[in-house]
Amino acid sequence: MKLVRYGAMGHERPALLDARGTLRDLSSIVPDIAGTALLPENLARIRAVDPAVLPAVAGAPRIGACVGAVGKFVCIGLNYTDHAAESGMAIPDEPVLFMKPPNCIVGPYDAVEIPRGSTKTDWEVELGIVIGTPAKYVSVEDAYAHVAGYCVVNDVSERSFQLERGGQWDKGKGCDTFGPIGPWLVTTDEIPDPHVLDMWLEVDGKRYQNGSTRTMIFSVPTIVAYISQFMSLQPGDIITTGTPPGVGLGQKPPVYLRAGQTMRLAVSGLGEQQQTTVDAA
Amino acid sequence: MKLVRYGAMGHERPALLDARGTLRDLSSIVPDIAGTALLPENLARIRAVDPAVLPAVAGAPRIGACVGAVGKFVCIGLNYTDHAAESGMAIPDEPVLFMKPPNCIVGPYDAVEIPRGSTKTDWEVELGIVIGTPAKYVSVEDAYAHVAGYCVVNDVSERSFQLERGGQWDKGKGCDTFGPIGPWLVTTDEIPDPHVLDMWLEVDGKRYQNGSTRTMIFSVPTIVAYISQFMSLQPGDIITTGTPPGVGLGQKPPVYLRAGQTMRLAVSGLGEQQQTTVDAA
Repeated sequence: MKLVRYGAMGHERPALLDARGTLRDLSSIVPDIAGTALLPENLARIRAVDPAVLPAVAGAPRIGACVGAVGKFVCIGLNYTDHAAESGMAIPDEPVLFMKPPNCIVGPYDAVEIPRGSTKTDWEVELGIVIGTPAKYVSVEDAYAHVAGYCVVNDVSERSFQLERGGQWDKGKGCDTFGPIGPWLVTTDEIPDPHVLDMWLEVDGKRYQNGSTRTMIFSVPTIVAYISQFMSLQPGDIITTGTPPGVGLGQKPPVYLRAGQTMRLAVSGLGEQQQTTVDAA
Repeated sequence: MKLVRYGAMGHERPALLDARGTLRDLSSIVPDIAGTALLPENLARIRAVDPAVLPAVAGAPRIGACVGAVGKFVCIGLNYTDHAAESGMAIPDEPVLFMKPPNCIVGPYDAVEIPRGSTKTDWEVELGIVIGTPAKYVSVEDAYAHVAGYCVVNDVSERSFQLERGGQWDKGKGCDTFGPIGPWLVTTDEIPDPHVLDMWLEVDGKRYQNGSTRTMIFSVPTIVAYISQFMSLQPGDIITTGTPPGVGLGQKPPVYLRAGQTMRLAVSGLGEQQQTTVDAA
């Protein structure tokens, strides 16, 4: 299934995308695509409904972040060998973890702000994991059972805030609008193997990132199991799994975003995002 | 005012502590001590009520975290000169930021888990700031207006996860139960100057930390204004402001927690916490 949230920011309603590409409202089945609605039994309830009986959504509403009320947005750094190299950093022995605050999450087509004082706002197309079942001290073998699905994430980053302002990366990762997710939460039944997905990102039509989850260092189940050793994961938590080569920081010379540009990015099977950059108000 | 949340975990109800030390239920005034209930106009509504007309809470219920539904738990590192020295780290030129996931938050008397595989679980008594009004790009001069109040925080930390497992501190800061807050959210009217507060922490009756917010490097308004340059703050967000000397890491030789120990800690005017350590299940 492709689960969607639509409507004005802060007032999104749940929907699914049917086989013909029509949005069908799910408000009669679940209150939101969030939290316990992502438990396997509740996804099964949605799956059991014939989409044709659900009301078609009229018009072309805003598409929101594909998961609401995210409790935790955990990020893996340097999870592609070539991206570690372009960043001038060593390939990690174990996953590098950092966090984005959930309030940086926006919809896939919302504007992305260039923060005040920013000189190095950068892009990162990533595969996002959406947690479905609570996970604490889970094994790699059991980890897939805790995943509800996947989504596209743009892990927008301000490199000077991240790397030149005191050492901990969180400072450059959580600016408002730095977390577009969606358009869809694609449930695991549609993505039997998350390690064969092509992904790309363009700025103003120029392709900068062109990668594949085939080159991830740490796999989806390894990441879920690993994080669960350090903090428990809850339904609706998002994990973003690192970016392939081609970020602005890795260009020679580096290239960064300015207001008025357009990012387009996609992961195969998970849909496409598009954001325009604006100066933070 | 001293605002409190009481009852079973996940089912806490709002209350205030009256002048005689009696808990008075606030459910008829606000749904929870959380989010928009912390806006100045809603705190004023609580303040306008005569506590004597509120029902006294019977018995001795569990005291929960003093703020519910925390969206963001931002931490300042190395904010006391002597603690930076004992940690073997340089005094920072600007605040060091990292994050704890909100789901590590527990009540002030709840058990603290020693994570599986932990060898270096440590304590940190801290002054916590509770945000009352949204803050984005606020000035130092305006920052106090965005603060609802203060609370005691134990920024429990696993030093090997934090410092020896990949560089970003978040890995050792967000284990379940690593964020006791409370017992009270003390509103700013009771704490005219947060920079004159004594603070201490004992383990099994031995005093390890004995400090004062007088020795903080970056002040409360500086911290709030600073963070708001990197991410917007919302009502109910918690900022913990760093710890004075005396953590386990700083002992010679270092001393770390094991199951079955008791931590007691306090900040003057903000109340006292007590936690027993247990092995994570």
